[in-house]
Amino acid sequence: MKLIMAVIQDKDSTRLSDALVKADYRATRLSSTGGFLKAGNTTFLIGVEDDAVEEVMGIIQKNCRSREQVVAPISPMGGNADSYVPYPVEVQVGGATVFVLPVDHFEQF
Amino acid sequence: MKLIMAVIQDKDSTRLSDALVKADYRATRLSSTGGFLKAGNTTFLIGVEDDAVEEVMGIIQKNCRSREQVVAPISPMGGNADSYVPYPVEVQVGGATVFVLPVDHFEQF
Amino acid sequence: MKLIMAVIQDKDSTRLSDALVKADYRATRLSSTGGFLKAGNTTFLIGVEDDAVEEVMGIIQKNCRSREQVVAPISPMGGNADSYVPYPVEVQVGGATVFVLPVDHFEQF
Ligand code: NI
Ligand code: NI
Ligand code: NI
Repeated sequence: MKLIMAVIQDKDSTRLSDALVKADYRATRLSSTGGFLKAGNTTFLIGVEDDAVEEVMGIIQKNCRSREQVVAPISPMGGNADSYVPYPVEVQVGGATVFVLPVDHFEQF
Repeated sequence: MKLIMAVIQDKDSTRLSDALVKADYRATRLSSTGGFLKAGNTTFLIGVEDDAVEEVMGIIQKNCRSREQVVAPISPMGGNADSYVPYPVEVQVGGATVFVLPVDHFEQF
Repeated sequence: MKLIMAVIQDKDSTRLSDALVKADYRATRLSSTGGFLKAGNTTFLIGVEDDAVEEVMGIIQKNCRSREQVVAPISPMGGNADSYVPYPVEVQVGGATVFVLPVDHFEQF
């Protein structure tokens, strides 16, 4: 038995959750901030048998991997003119930081 | 030393907390959602000596075990008529998913 | 690889975060309540190489250690007269409860 703790971006949270449910894994989500990833993030706790670790790692990688995204220019109206970017830019989104922890004992009541 | 991570339903949270305090154990609570249990849930972190694991597991089981509860019919007034149940129903509440993790080192400052 | 889980008081959270960033460590923060520490608290997750555990423990100790603080008398105006303290008092603030957990596998996507 292992406990997989995966810190991922909020924007990938629903997609990862759906993919885990579809593969019959259950996860608990903790709201988290900062650190490993810049934007708002979510920490998933997933308890799995040893031989399922690789499959779950693959699901996380597929649904959360770091990638570039083109962000359209945002009008400064109602916002801060200092942060106005008049042309599309590429930003890095996604990414996951994953710890696989050994579990001494697992119980469900 | 072990770290007990217990995911339980919100509705059992105060009761478990009180039972742990009474038995002289201290827990940190993380707000969590979804996954192991359907409703809103709480993740307890409880650091204990090895020989106290069984006692704490017993406290969790006693205060959070899965059980059936009769839910009285809810009037559709002000709610969604689609979800109106005109007779009492039994629903499963409670339950706990518990991981006991080994701890390399424990420190209090 | 180790996962350091540190439960600290909210008031020390920004200071610890800044000190970790300055030392080039990255942490994820989980909002937590009660338990090990009385006031609102935050749980830091910090993944580190084995030989960095001591340094990070030192950073946590330096920025979060339990200490006494003199609290000026608070006027009962608009508050509860029962809790009025007419002279400065010393209260204990800070403190950290730290678990160092073994990590089987660590991955970043
Ligand atoms: Ni057992
Ligand atoms: Ni030590
Ligand atoms: Ni690997």
